[in-house]
Amino acid sequence: MPAIDGDRLLRDLYAAREIGKYKTGVHRPTFSPQDVDARHWLAARLTEAGLDASIDGIGNIYGRDPAPGRKLLTGSHMETQNHAGWLDGVMGVLYGLETARCLGRGIDVGSWADEEGHYGSFLGSRSFCGLLTEAEIDTCANRETGTSLRDALREAGFSGRPRQTVDTARYLGYLEAHIEQGADLEDHHLRLGIVTAIVGSRRFRILFKGQQNHAGTTRMSVRKDAGVALVKLVAAIEERFPRIAGPRTVWTTGDIKLDPGAASIVPGGAELVFQFRDTDPATLDALEAALTELLAEAAKGPCEVSVAYRSTTAPSAMDPGFQAALTAAAERHAPGLHQPMPSGAGHDAQILSQVLPSAMLFVPSIGGISHHYAEDTSDADIVLGCQVFADAAAAILAGG
Amino acid sequence: MPAIDGDRLLRDLYAAREIGKYKTGVHRPTFSPQDVDARHWLAARLTEAGLDASIDGIGNIYGRDPAPGRKLLTGSHMETQNHAGWLDGVMGVLYGLETARCLGRGIDVGSWADEEGHYGSFLGSRSFCGLLTEAEIDTCANRETGTSLRDALREAGFSGRPRQTVDTARYLGYLEAHIEQGADLEDHHLRLGIVTAIVGSRRFRILFKGQQNHAGTTRMSVRKDAGVALVKLVAAIEERFPRIAGPRTVWTTGDIKLDPGAASIVPGGAELVFQFRDTDPATLDALEAALTELLAEAAKGPCEVSVAYRSTTAPSAMDPGFQAALTAAAERHAPGLHQPMPSGAGHDAQILSQVLPSAMLFVPSIGGISHHYAEDTSDADIVLGCQVFADAAAAILAGG
Repeated sequence: MPAIDGDRLLRDLYAAREIGKYKTGVHRPTFSPQDVDARHWLAARLTEAGLDASIDGIGNIYGRDPAPGRKLLTGSHMETQNHAGWLDGVMGVLYGLETARCLGRGIDVGSWADEEGHYGSFLGSRSFCGLLTEAEIDTCANRETGTSLRDALREAGFSGRPRQTVDTARYLGYLEAHIEQGADLEDHHLRLGIVTAIVGSRRFRILFKGQQNHAGTTRMSVRKDAGVALVKLVAAIEERFPRIAGPRTVWTTGDIKLDPGAASIVPGGAELVFQFRDTDPATLDALEAALTELLAEAAKGPCEVSVAYRSTTAPSAMDPGFQAALTAAAERHAPGLHQPMPSGAGHDAQILSQVLPSAMLFVPSIGGISHHYAEDTSDADIVLGCQVFADAAAAILAGG
Repeated sequence: MPAIDGDRLLRDLYAAREIGKYKTGVHRPTFSPQDVDARHWLAARLTEAGLDASIDGIGNIYGRDPAPGRKLLTGSHMETQNHAGWLDGVMGVLYGLETARCLGRGIDVGSWADEEGHYGSFLGSRSFCGLLTEAEIDTCANRETGTSLRDALREAGFSGRPRQTVDTARYLGYLEAHIEQGADLEDHHLRLGIVTAIVGSRRFRILFKGQQNHAGTTRMSVRKDAGVALVKLVAAIEERFPRIAGPRTVWTTGDIKLDPGAASIVPGGAELVFQFRDTDPATLDALEAALTELLAEAAKGPCEVSVAYRSTTAPSAMDPGFQAALTAAAERHAPGLHQPMPSGAGHDAQILSQVLPSAMLFVPSIGGISHHYAEDTSDADIVLGCQVFADAAAAILAGG
C-alpha cells in the first residue's frame, strides 16, 4: 500500500486554518468572504494535484481525475459553524486530496456546500445527488442574517453556474472521513472509528401560547403561563424518554425562548427547539409517539400547544464492504485500536449513501469537543487516519 | 367637596397619549426623546395650573404650590414600559394635576423618573427621598442599550441640575393613583381599590454552568446539560411553591436563556430570571428558604448552579388614616363598589412610604391587561377615580 505524505497533509490543514482563523479555530460560515476564499484555495490545490477542478452553481467544489476508469469519490465540506473548529469538514476534504496525490489515480474529491446548514439542510450534497430543486433554493435564507441563498451565491460569484450532479456509473462509491465530534474513541483509548450507520433524527419547534400578564398583579389561579407549560413538557420528556430510549439514543432541548422574556411579565408565549436521534427507525417512532402523547397531555393545560416545524431524517446504513476495507486498513496500522460505531452527527455521507455505496471513518476529537474553536485532534491521529483512509481507498479501487 | 372637571382630565390624558403614541398605547421609555417631550409637556401643564414647576437632575418633574401651609404630595410617573399602555403612570400624575386645579390649594405634584426601571430601580422616587447616591447613579445603565444613566441625563438635558429632595415637614403625606394592572376589580364587578399594602418581592438571576457539546455525538450519560438542569429547577419550584404560598403569593419565571441556544448543541449555559411577591415578610422568607433548598438539590446534579443577582424589596403598609379617607370618598361616589386590596405591583408609593404616610387608589384595568399597548380603563372609571382621589385629598388636607 502506498504511504501518504503526513507532513504535506498537515501543511495543507494548517494553511486552511489561516483562512478565517478565529483563536485556535476558524470562523468560516457558508459563503462568507472567508468561506469563498477557502473554496478557491481548495480548487487551486485540487488543480495542482492534477484533478479537473471547478466550483459549481451551489458552491460545491469538485475535483475529477481526468484518467479513464471507475473512480472512488471522496470528500466532506469546507465551511464551518460560527467560531468553530479547524478540522470539522476540511480534514475529510484534504484526506481526499492527499489520497488522490498518494494513489495518483482513481480518486475524485468533492467539497459539499453548506453541510453546516447556514442556509438549508445538506444543500451541496443534495444538489450533487439530484435531490435539491431550484424551487427549494428560492426559499433558502441564512438562518442568522436572513440573506437569501440566491443573493449569497451571487455575492460569492457562483450564481448562474450549472450545478454538477453525480454520474453514478462513474463511481464505485463514496468515502468520507471526519472528526468524531464526541469522546467515545478517546474514552475507550481508541484511534479510529468505522461508522456502521448515521443516525436518523426528528426535529421539532414547539410553540406554547398563553396570556401575557403582569407578574405582580395576576393571581396564580388565573394565569396562562406559557413558560411554565413549556417547562412542564420538557420535564415530562426527561422523565419519559429514558424508559423508551435505546443505548445510544440522544435527545436535546437546544433552545428555549420566552415571550416577552422580562422579569416582571408572565410569559404569553414560549418556544422550544427539540430533537432526538437514533440509528433504529423503530426507536425513533416510539420516541415520537411518546412526544405526541406528552403534547396531548400539555394541551389539557391552560395554554395552547402546537408543533410549528417538524423535520425528519432517516438513519443511513453504511456499506458493509467499505466498512470491511476500512476495518482491515485500521487493523493494519493500529491493531486493536479501532471500533465500529454509529455516527450521532449528520454528514454528507448520509445523502451520498442514497445514490452510492458509502462509508465513513472517524478520528478522535480531543475531549469530545466540537463546534467550538477548541476542537482538536492530535497530529498523529490526523496522519494515521489519512493513511488508513488511503489504504481503504486503494483496496476499494483494487477490488472494483 | 369640590367637583373635578372630568372632560379636562380626559383631554389631558388624550394629549399625553399622543407623545410617543404606539397603536392604542404609548412607547415612552425613560429619557427617550418621547419621554423627554412628555416631561416638558407635564412641566408646562403644572405651570399653567399655578404650580412652581421644575425638572431636576434625575429627571423628576416637581410642581409645588407656592402658597404657605402644609401640603399633600401626589404623583406617579410619566415614562412607560416598551410599547405599553396609555395610562400606566401618567394617569396618577394627571390625577394630581387635576386635584391641584380642582382644590386650588395644598396639592404638590411629583412625577418620579424611571419607575419602570429602564435604568435602575425606582431611581426618581428614591432620589427624592434621599435614598439614591451619586455612586449608584454612576453604575446605572439602560437594561437594553447599555447607555449609561449619566449619558442619558446629559442627552436629555437634565445633567448638572440639582436633585430635589423631600421636605418631610412640608407634607401631610403622599397619595398616588394607578391602574390596577390586574383583573381583580373587574372580576368582582368593582370600580375602586384601596391599597392596604404594596407587596415585597425577591428577585433572582440564577445561572447554570454545564458543558457545551454536540447534540448528536454526546451520550446522555456523560452530558452536563445546563438547560435540563434549569428546567428541573423550575419544575421543582412549580411543585413546591404552592404548598408554601399564601392566598395572594405570586411567583414568576420571567425569562429563560440557553447558551448557545442552537438546535444541535447541548446547552453549556442556562440562565433564569425568577421572582416572587407577597405582602407578608414571613411568607417571603419561607419561599426563599424553599428556593435555597431547591438550589442545593440542583447543585447535586451534573451542572454548577449560582445566584448571579438577588434583590429584595420589603412589603410596604399603607397609612390607615389615608386608607380611611379613600374608603369614605369611594363609598360616597360608588357605594359598595370598592374594596381594600394589596398591590401586587411595585409603585413609587412604596418608596415614599419610607418617609411619608402614603396611600394608593386603584381603578380597574380592562381584562387585567397591563404593560401592553392594549391596556385600558373606561373613561367613566378614570373620571370616578379622580373624583374619589380629589375628595380624599381634600379630606386629608382638611384633617391636617
